[in-house]
Amino acid sequence: MKGLWVEVLRGGLVESRHRVHLAVVDEGGRLVSAAGDASFATFARSAIKSLQALPLLDDGVADRYGLTDPELALCSASHSGEAFHLAAAQSMLDKIGESESSLACGAHAPFHEPSARALRDAGEAPNRLHNNCSGKHAGMLALTRAHGWGVAGYHEAGHPVQRRMLEETSRWTGVPSSAISTGVDGCGVVTFGVPLSALALAFARLGAAAERGESGPARIVGAMVRHPEYVAGTERLCTDLMRAAGGRIIAKVGAEGVYCAGAPGAGLGIALKVEDGAKRAAEPALLGVLRALELISAAEYVSLARYAEPVLLNTRGEEVGRLRPVVGDDLDRLRPVVELESGGG
Amino acid sequence: MKGLWVEVLRGGLVESRHRVHLAVVDEGGRLVSAAGDASFATFARSAIKSLQALPLLDDGVADRYGLTDPELALCSASHSGEAFHLAAAQSMLDKIGESESSLACGAHAPFHEPSARALRDAGEAPNRLHNNCSGKHAGMLALTRAHGWGVAGYHEAGHPVQRRMLEETSRWTGVPSSAISTGVDGCGVVTFGVPLSALALAFARLGAAAERGESGPARIVGAMVRHPEYVAGTERLCTDLMRAAGGRIIAKVGAEGVYCAGAPGAGLGIALKVEDGAKRAAEPALLGVLRALELISAAEYVSLARYAEPVLLNTRGEEVGRLRPVVGDDLDRLRPVVELESGGG
Repeated sequence: MKGLWVEVLRGGLVESRHRVHLAVVDEGGRLVSAAGDASFATFARSAIKSLQALPLLDDGVADRYGLTDPELALCSASHSGEAFHLAAAQSMLDKIGESESSLACGAHAPFHEPSARALRDAGEAPNRLHNNCSGKHAGMLALTRAHGWGVAGYHEAGHPVQRRMLEETSRWTGVPSSAISTGVDGCGVVTFGVPLSALALAFARLGAAAERGESGPARIVGAMVRHPEYVAGTERLCTDLMRAAGGRIIAKVGAEGVYCAGAPGAGLGIALKVEDGAKRAAEPALLGVLRALELISAAEYVSLARYAEPVLLNTRGEEVGRLRPVVGDDLDRLRPVVELESGGG
Repeated sequence: MKGLWVEVLRGGLVESRHRVHLAVVDEGGRLVSAAGDASFATFARSAIKSLQALPLLDDGVADRYGLTDPELALCSASHSGEAFHLAAAQSMLDKIGESESSLACGAHAPFHEPSARALRDAGEAPNRLHNNCSGKHAGMLALTRAHGWGVAGYHEAGHPVQRRMLEETSRWTGVPSSAISTGVDGCGVVTFGVPLSALALAFARLGAAAERGESGPARIVGAMVRHPEYVAGTERLCTDLMRAAGGRIIAKVGAEGVYCAGAPGAGLGIALKVEDGAKRAAEPALLGVLRALELISAAEYVSLARYAEPVLLNTRGEEVGRLRPVVGDDLDRLRPVVELESGGG
């Protein structure tokens, strides 16, 4: 693939343009496809929550506390704060004997607008369960409790649970722990910085391990694809893509324009980063790449067109533009990744 | 100036990066400074509302209806929907014998969060006066009424008021009307697409005309710099920059990463576009450029550091990163436009 971009069209102009870096690799680490700088180093943010959930299986934590598949999917989620997400997070806390106040993540309003509105209308403030990362945090608390590590400061770099997360990230990405950059994520835990190609490798390996029937990866991948509504929520791409692809694709968004995906059957891992960090471009880019690699069908792409080529509406509700993924090396001659039939999008 | 970028820093990494195109020109159209593609064509969006207000002076509309300087500043504004903005917009409508329902812009919640919250808490929905463009629309209605053009469809491309806006844009940018791209703006009116260098020229010319004492430009520029709170609002860069610079700078943001400014005393016009359309990068870029050109002092830059090098907070309220403007041609060796003292920003 040549340069990968997402254009913002309005009137007769490309009003804005997002540059996308992409790495597509197989389980052996071979770079199958790339755009921009495949070794662009960035923080994985929420895109690798599935890897961070694996110790719950490998260390017997899920069995010990009787964690269900939807709960494991929630551990891998940036959820929308809908009622069923909150219930699953609360259920995990109940099973491990912790409470909402034990979560180190801050509170924020649900991504799911009707849920956010209902909360406002009831005069209630969001709590930590509403944080899109509350499942991951509940999982980290479960790991902490099972190992008897002590809950205080579980989100901080020095804590055994975060050291374990670093080891897990190193194991799957193939990047030595000492070479992994660290920062603080939106929810307060450590986030890990690696090249895109290493993130793609992690997703290729996770998918391959699940395909081979390795118990931890198979359970996490299975939980995500069978309960995709727990990985994101209503009207969210991760959920709708995994549902549309019927188990062929695992997908997870990260903040600042990161998207990772795995296609276990095809033996591929995909990682992309919108250079400027825009979420609005990450979704079209991912779907463009999946279609270009024929990992989703034309019909599946069209069924997801509201994410792939979203329409821009103005304050009058009029359609004034749209986004679309494009490829090419010459900025004056970029061409659409997918030629939608008129009326698509 | 070499390449101009705004970096997003987190932990030890540049997590994301915004490319900025820049044109700085004098009244004669000479390109004094540039970065990226100075002829990048984009829609001006709200950045040229001051030009769109000029017919109110040139055609005697402001005199006829007794429009005040704050009201003229509001015509040039993307305001925050604070009480004093709403009052000024309503006052204009009263003077011309129109009402809120005559405004063609859609409703949206005030940018000013306390005002938005107060509206929600009162169980009220935002109306068209709250739209950040309601002053511009009230001005267009005044122009329409004064000319007896008929209010219906005043926001549409074929209406005389929009043809007048096109002529005015052509006059100041130096781009023939036939070469100006058109699209539909967020508030429903026509928006005009020209090269950045032409936008910069318009601001150089507007400032120069004001300096020479030409009545229309002098009144608009004077209204903006003497009543900057009407051009944006509380905790907004346009307002705080014009206030800090004490009349030396006029500045106006546009949607999709556009910022225009004029430095009448220095005879310069500035236009920049964040290629990806991000507002978060346009503010650091503008302040970096103004400081690099010595159009604002180091002390003024520091006083505006919350816009120039904004801190990123997470859901726990922790500082996890920041943005800053950088220059250079080699992406691995970009250097800060301004070296803030430690503690700055």
